[in-house]
Amino acid sequence: MTAALPTASAAAAFARPAVREDFGPHADAVARVAAELAATAAERDRAGGTALAQRQLLRASGLLTLAVPRAFGGPEAPWPLILHIVRRFAAADSSLAHLFGFQHLQVAGVILFGSPAQQQRYLREGTVEQGWFWGNAVNGRDPRLQATRTEAGWQLDGVKSFCSGAADSDVLSVSVSTGDAPTDRIFAIVPTHREGVAVNDDWDNLGQRQTDSGTVRFDRVQVAADEVLRPPGVASSPRATLRNLIGQLVLTEIYLGNAQGALDEALAWLATEARAWPGAGVERPQDDPLLLLRAGELWLQLRAAVASADLALADFQAAWNAGLALTWEQRGELAIAIAAARVQAARTALHVTAQIFELTGARSTARRHGFDRYWRNVRVHTLHDPVDYRAKGIGRWLATGQAPEPYGYG
Amino acid sequence: MTAALPTASAAAAFARPAVREDFGPHADAVARVAAELAATAAERDRAGGTALAQRQLLRASGLLTLAVPRAFGGPEAPWPLILHIVRRFAAADSSLAHLFGFQHLQVAGVILFGSPAQQQRYLREGTVEQGWFWGNAVNGRDPRLQATRTEAGWQLDGVKSFCSGAADSDVLSVSVSTGDAPTDRIFAIVPTHREGVAVNDDWDNLGQRQTDSGTVRFDRVQVAADEVLRPPGVASSPRATLRNLIGQLVLTEIYLGNAQGALDEALAWLATEARAWPGAGVERPQDDPLLLLRAGELWLQLRAAVASADLALADFQAAWNAGLALTWEQRGELAIAIAAARVQAARTALHVTAQIFELTGARSTARRHGFDRYWRNVRVHTLHDPVDYRAKGIGRWLATGQAPEPYGYG
Amino acid sequence: MTAALPTASAAAAFARPAVREDFGPHADAVARVAAELAATAAERDRAGGTALAQRQLLRASGLLTLAVPRAFGGPEAPWPLILHIVRRFAAADSSLAHLFGFQHLQVAGVILFGSPAQQQRYLREGTVEQGWFWGNAVNGRDPRLQATRTEAGWQLDGVKSFCSGAADSDVLSVSVSTGDAPTDRIFAIVPTHREGVAVNDDWDNLGQRQTDSGTVRFDRVQVAADEVLRPPGVASSPRATLRNLIGQLVLTEIYLGNAQGALDEALAWLATEARAWPGAGVERPQDDPLLLLRAGELWLQLRAAVASADLALADFQAAWNAGLALTWEQRGELAIAIAAARVQAARTALHVTAQIFELTGARSTARRHGFDRYWRNVRVHTLHDPVDYRAKGIGRWLATGQAPEPYGYG
Amino acid sequence: MTAALPTASAAAAFARPAVREDFGPHADAVARVAAELAATAAERDRAGGTALAQRQLLRASGLLTLAVPRAFGGPEAPWPLILHIVRRFAAADSSLAHLFGFQHLQVAGVILFGSPAQQQRYLREGTVEQGWFWGNAVNGRDPRLQATRTEAGWQLDGVKSFCSGAADSDVLSVSVSTGDAPTDRIFAIVPTHREGVAVNDDWDNLGQRQTDSGTVRFDRVQVAADEVLRPPGVASSPRATLRNLIGQLVLTEIYLGNAQGALDEALAWLATEARAWPGAGVERPQDDPLLLLRAGELWLQLRAAVASADLALADFQAAWNAGLALTWEQRGELAIAIAAARVQAARTALHVTAQIFELTGARSTARRHGFDRYWRNVRVHTLHDPVDYRAKGIGRWLATGQAPEPYGYG
Repeated sequence: MTAALPTASAAAAFARPAVREDFGPHADAVARVAAELAATAAERDRAGGTALAQRQLLRASGLLTLAVPRAFGGPEAPWPLILHIVRRFAAADSSLAHLFGFQHLQVAGVILFGSPAQQQRYLREGTVEQGWFWGNAVNGRDPRLQATRTEAGWQLDGVKSFCSGAADSDVLSVSVSTGDAPTDRIFAIVPTHREGVAVNDDWDNLGQRQTDSGTVRFDRVQVAADEVLRPPGVASSPRATLRNLIGQLVLTEIYLGNAQGALDEALAWLATEARAWPGAGVERPQDDPLLLLRAGELWLQLRAAVASADLALADFQAAWNAGLALTWEQRGELAIAIAAARVQAARTALHVTAQIFELTGARSTARRHGFDRYWRNVRVHTLHDPVDYRAKGIGRWLATGQAPEPYGYG
Repeated sequence: MTAALPTASAAAAFARPAVREDFGPHADAVARVAAELAATAAERDRAGGTALAQRQLLRASGLLTLAVPRAFGGPEAPWPLILHIVRRFAAADSSLAHLFGFQHLQVAGVILFGSPAQQQRYLREGTVEQGWFWGNAVNGRDPRLQATRTEAGWQLDGVKSFCSGAADSDVLSVSVSTGDAPTDRIFAIVPTHREGVAVNDDWDNLGQRQTDSGTVRFDRVQVAADEVLRPPGVASSPRATLRNLIGQLVLTEIYLGNAQGALDEALAWLATEARAWPGAGVERPQDDPLLLLRAGELWLQLRAAVASADLALADFQAAWNAGLALTWEQRGELAIAIAAARVQAARTALHVTAQIFELTGARSTARRHGFDRYWRNVRVHTLHDPVDYRAKGIGRWLATGQAPEPYGYG
Repeated sequence: MTAALPTASAAAAFARPAVREDFGPHADAVARVAAELAATAAERDRAGGTALAQRQLLRASGLLTLAVPRAFGGPEAPWPLILHIVRRFAAADSSLAHLFGFQHLQVAGVILFGSPAQQQRYLREGTVEQGWFWGNAVNGRDPRLQATRTEAGWQLDGVKSFCSGAADSDVLSVSVSTGDAPTDRIFAIVPTHREGVAVNDDWDNLGQRQTDSGTVRFDRVQVAADEVLRPPGVASSPRATLRNLIGQLVLTEIYLGNAQGALDEALAWLATEARAWPGAGVERPQDDPLLLLRAGELWLQLRAAVASADLALADFQAAWNAGLALTWEQRGELAIAIAAARVQAARTALHVTAQIFELTGARSTARRHGFDRYWRNVRVHTLHDPVDYRAKGIGRWLATGQAPEPYGYG
Repeated sequence: MTAALPTASAAAAFARPAVREDFGPHADAVARVAAELAATAAERDRAGGTALAQRQLLRASGLLTLAVPRAFGGPEAPWPLILHIVRRFAAADSSLAHLFGFQHLQVAGVILFGSPAQQQRYLREGTVEQGWFWGNAVNGRDPRLQATRTEAGWQLDGVKSFCSGAADSDVLSVSVSTGDAPTDRIFAIVPTHREGVAVNDDWDNLGQRQTDSGTVRFDRVQVAADEVLRPPGVASSPRATLRNLIGQLVLTEIYLGNAQGALDEALAWLATEARAWPGAGVERPQDDPLLLLRAGELWLQLRAAVASADLALADFQAAWNAGLALTWEQRGELAIAIAAARVQAARTALHVTAQIFELTGARSTARRHGFDRYWRNVRVHTLHDPVDYRAKGIGRWLATGQAPEPYGYG
C-alpha cells in the first residue's frame, strides 16, 4: 500500500475559508493544533479508538480553558471565538473538534449551574490549574442510569450511551433523570476515576470515530451533595437554558468545519492530482466549466450557511452577556436563530461533503485518502437531535409565535 | 369581481424578517413608504405601466438623496442601510424597489466617475436641490446606441433596451461603447427631456412590470464634453469598478425582498385565510406538521441567504471606505463575496417565492391576490447577468486564484 | 407592441418528447388540434375567459368520445392513450388540456356509476350522438351546495367553486354531500342550461386561465331520481373508486405536458433567438457547456417523471380491465403508483417550468411570449390535492402497509 | 462487540420494490443467492478483500451463463432480466452485483466482437462448460499497459488499474491501446493464470470494497492472434458499440439496487428498532408525519428513476434484437435513453442512500450495521464516467441534434 498522500497539508495550502477567520491571540495555537490534527486524521479515522496523543496535544495547547471566566483564572474568550475554533478544528479532525467543543460545554454547565464554591473548585482548581479534560454522560434519551438518594447525596447505578469524550477524561458531567418532569433531573460532576465508574471501549461508529462516544457504566457510584450543580440540570431561568444552546452551536460548527475541510481537500486535489476529463475539451481540470460551476456552487452555499451560523453566534454572545436580564422572549428568538443556523449547516454540510467527489473523481476514493470521512462525520452528527423537527419548530414560531420548548429536544 | 383583500397590510402584520432590520433615522419614512407601496402593489402589477404616484411618493420621502455625500448636501447614508431599504421596499413592491435602488446606483456613478464640478452640479444641484429621479440607458449587451464625436462633445444616435426607470425620470445615465475594448465607452449624463430623447412606453414584461424598463431612442442627441463622466464608464482603478458591484447588490436585495414579502404574505394567509387539509389530522392549519416543516424550511433558507448578503454589504462598505487605497486583490475578494451572495439569494428567492403556495393553497391563486408576482419578479430579475456564470467565476477563483473580470459581465 | 413571435410552432419543430409518443389512429387529429391550440395559447392566456373557438375545435375533432365504450358507440380507447393526448395537449395549451381530460373523467363517472339506461342516455345519446362537452361541479371541499329531497328526486340550492369547464358546457356532473359520511353524497347529471343553473364568469386565476373554473350557482334546480348515478358518488367497490384515480392521472399528465411544452419552447428559443453569453467563451449558445448541462438535466428529470407516469397508466388500465374482480389490495397499490407518479410529476414540472428561463434569458421574459404560463399553470394545478400529503400517504403504506384512504382526498 | 443484527433478512421482509420485479424461471436462484449475499454483506464490507465463498456461490447458481446465446448452450436471457438481477443483487451486496454484472459484459464482448470460433471457445467451452468467471483489465484512462507485435500475435507489458473482478477470475478481457485513434485498440482474451499475469491485492477503496478492482500487472504476457477479438475493441458498426452501453446499464442498476437496499433496510429498522422522537407527538415512529413524508418522498423518487431505467432497458433489448440493422441514429437515441437513466439513477441513489438515516436515526450508525455502505458504494461507482458530462451530452443532443460520441467516454 502506498503511503497516504499528505492531503491534509495540501488542503491547508489551498484552503479558501467561506468566511474569513480571525483567532486573535490564539491564532498560533489554533494553527499548530489544526495542522497536527490534520496530519494524521485520515489514518486515525480508519483506526478508531481513543486519540491519546491528540487529546494530549489539546491539553498542552492551553485552549481547553478558553471558556473559563477571568474571575476563575481563565481567559474568558468570547463564545464566537471558541466556536470558530471548533469549526477550524473540525475541518482538520472532526472527532477531536467535538471533544474540544464539548469541553467548553461542560465548563459552561459549571458557569451556569454551579455555586461560587463549585465554580472555584471545578473551573479554577480543576480546569485551569489541573488542566482537566472533561467528558460527559448526559444523553437525555437513555433512561438506564438511575439516581437514588443517599445520606450524603446520591448513588448512581446503570449505564449511559453516547458518552462522548469519557475515555481519557479527568471528570464527567453526568445528567440523570429523577422523575417525570423535564426538570426532575440532577446534574452531577463525577471524577472519571471514581470507584464504580467504568468507561467502556465500545464506540465503533461509521463517523466521529474518535469521539469515544461509547457507554459508561456506573456501579454504586457515590456522589456528594455538593457535587450536584444547581439549578438541577435544566432551566429555571432563560439564562440556565443557554447550556443546551451551546450544544447546538457546537454541532453546527462541526458540520460547517467538515464541509470546509472537505472543500479544501477537494480544491487541493483539483490543483495537484486531478486530470481533465476526456471530452471536457480542456487540458487542465481547473479550466473545465462544469467543475468550476460545481466548485463555485458548493463554496457559495457553504458561505451562506456559515453566515447564518455567525449571526447565531453573535446573538448567543449578546444573550450570554445579558446574564439574568435575558428574557424568555429573547431566549426564544435566540433558539430560533440557532435552530435556523443548525438546519442550514446540516443540510449544506451533507451536500458539500458528498459532492466534493464530483471534483476529485474516481481515483480519490482510495481508502487511504479518507475523503469520505467528512460525509460520515456529518451524517452521524446530524442525527442527534434531527433537523426536521427543528425546522418544524421554526415553522410553529412563524405560524403561531410559540417559541421552541427550551427543555431537552423540544 | 371581489375587491382585492388587503393582503399587503395583513402581510406586514405577520412579517418575520429573516434577519432583524434597523433603518435608523429613516425608519419612519421607510415604514410609511413601504406601507403605501404594498397597499396597491398587486393591483399595479396587473396594470403595468408607469407608477407615477408611487414615484412621486419616493421623491417626497427624501430617501432619493441617501447616497449623496455630506460634502454635497446629502446624508451620505452607509450602503448597507440603503440596500436594506431596497430589500424592505422589494418585499412590498419589487418594481419601485428597483427604481429606488437604481437611483442610488446612478448617484454612485457620479461619485465614482464625476469631476468635482460635475459632482456639484449633478449631486448637490440636481439630486439634492432639484430632487432628481434618475433613470438609465446603460445595457451593455445592446450595441445599437452609437456615439459620434462633435466639436462640443458627442452626438448620440440609436436605441437602448432595458432602460429601467427612464419614464418619468429627470435625468439619465447613458453608457455607450465607442470602440472594441471594454474601456472604450463613454458614460454621459443626459437630461431626459433633452431634444431628441424619446422614452418609449414599450415595457410589458412578465415581472418587474413597473420598472419602465423599455427602450429609449436617441435621435441626434447632443452631449457636451463636460456631461461625460471620467474615467470613461469602466474602470481604471479598483475603486471605479465599485459601481458595477452596487448594481449586483441591488439585484441581490431585490431577490431577498421578494422572498421575504412572499413569505410574509403566506404567513398572513396561513393565519387568517387557510383551512386545515382534510386528512392532515388537525383542526387548524397552524398545527399541521407538514405545513410547519415547509414554513420553517423556507424561512431558515432565506435567513442564510440574507446573512450571506449582509456579509457582502459589510465588505462593500469597507471597500468603499478604503477609497483609492482599495487594491485589485481586495476588489477581487469583494466581487467573490458579492457573487456568492447574489447566487445564493437568486436560488433561494426562486425557491421561496414558488413554494409559498404550498402554505397558502388553491384558493390563494385567484389573480386578484397577486401572490405569483413575487416569483415573476425574481424570475425576470435573476436573468440579467445569469447566476451560473457567477458561480463558475467563483469556481475559477477557488481553483486558480483568478478573480472575476471587473469589466461588464465577466 | 410587436406581434407575438410564432413561438408555438417553433417549439413544435424543436420538440424532443421525453418519451416517444404514439397516438395510433388518432395521431392526425391530435397533431392538428395541438397545433391549433398552440398557435394562440399565449395570447389566450393573457386574455383569460372562455375559449369558445378552441372548445369547438375539440368538439369537431371527434376526440371527446374517446372513453365511451364500444357498446355505446364510442371507440373505447385505452386510458393510457387518452391520457397521453392530455399530456400532448397540455404541452400546447394547458387549460384546454384540462377541459379535454375532465371530459373523459365525467364519461368515466357514467361508466362506473351509471345504470345501463343512464349509460345509454348519457354516453350514446349525449356524448356520442349529440357531441356533449361535459363540465363539472364536484369540488368536495366546498360545502355550500345543498340537496334536498323532492317527490321526483332532489332539489339543488347553493353554489360550488372550482367548476372547471362549466361555461359553454352541455351538461354537468354535480356532486353534493347529503350527510356526514364520505359516502353520503349524490352524484347527479344536470344539463347546463336547465332552469336555475347559472354559470358565473368569475374565474380569474393566475394559471389555467381558460379552464372556466369559476362558480356555478344552483337556484332550486330540479333533479330527477333517474339523473342521479349510483352508487352515490363514492365508492362501494374498488372499481367505483377508479373515477377519483382518473382525476389524479389527468392532473399528472397536465403537469408533464406543461413541462414538456416549456422545454420545447426553450429549445426552440435556444436554436433561433438566444445569444451566447459574453464570457461563456463560445460563439453559439448551443456550444455553451453550462446551458447544455442545464438543458440535459431538465430533460432527463422530465423523462424519469414521465416514465413513472407511464407505469401508473399501465397499472390503471390493468385495474380498469379487471372490472369488478379488482381487489381492495390491488386498488391500494394502484393508488400508490398513481400518487408516486403525481408527486414526481408535480415537483419535476415545477422545476422544469421555472428553470427554462436559464436557457432562454432576459429577453424571453417579454410578456407577449407567455413563457411563464407553463409555470403558472403547474403552480396552480399542483395545489388541488397537495402533493405532500400524497407523499406522506405513500410513507404510511411503506411503514405500515396501510393503503391511502380511497374516499376524497385521503 | 455485539453481533451484527440480522438486518439484511429483516430488510428483505420489509422490502417494497419501487417497481415490482419478476425474475421468471430464475426467481428461486435469484432469491437464494440474494439472501446469502445479504446475510454477510455488511461484515464483508468491513473486511474488504476477495469474497471467495460468494463468488463460488455465483458460480454454483448457474446465473453466470445467462447472456450466452442458445446457439452456444446458454439460456440467452433477455438483457432486462439480467440487469434486473444485477439490481436485485446490488440491493443485497453491491460488490458482488458488480462482479455479476461485469461477467455478462465480458460475455457480451465475445458475442459482439468474437468470430464464430472464438464464440465457440469462449462462450460454450469456457463460460458454459467450464463455468468461467470473467474479470477485466480494460480501464481506458490508464495508458500504462502496452501491446507490441510478435510473430504469433502480441505481447503485453505494463499495468492496468480498476481491474474489477480480476482476483479469483478464470479469464480476463483486456483492452490495450495501440495507437492514437480511439479505434487503435486491441481487445484480447487472456486466461488469468497465464504466465506473466499478476493480479495484485491492492484494492482498498471506500466503497465497492469486494469488487477486487485493483491493479493487474502484465509481464511479457503472450497473446495469440486468435485470442484477439475483432473488430478491434471499439466500434466499426452501431451494433459493436452496444458493449459500452451494457456497461452503462450495469452501473445504472447498481445505483438503483443500492438505493432500494438502503430503503428496505431503513423501513425494516423503522418497523423494528426505531423509537418515536420526543416532541414528534406520536407514540410510534410509524405515525410520525415527518418520517412518513420523508419515506414517501424517497420511495417515489426511486420509483421514477427505476422507471426511467426500465425504459432504457427495453430500448436496449430492441437495439440488441435489431442486430446489424441497428442504425447510428437509433444507437444515438439509445445512448441518450441510457445516459438519462444513468444520471437520474446516480443522483437519486446518492440522495436516497444518504437520506435513509433521517428515518433510522443516531443508533443506526453503529458501524456493525453497515448502513453507510450503500452510500459509499454509490458514491464510488458514480464517479467512473461522471454524470455531469452525460447530462451535458444530452443537452448537446437536444440543442443541436448531435448524439453522444460512441467511443469511450464521449
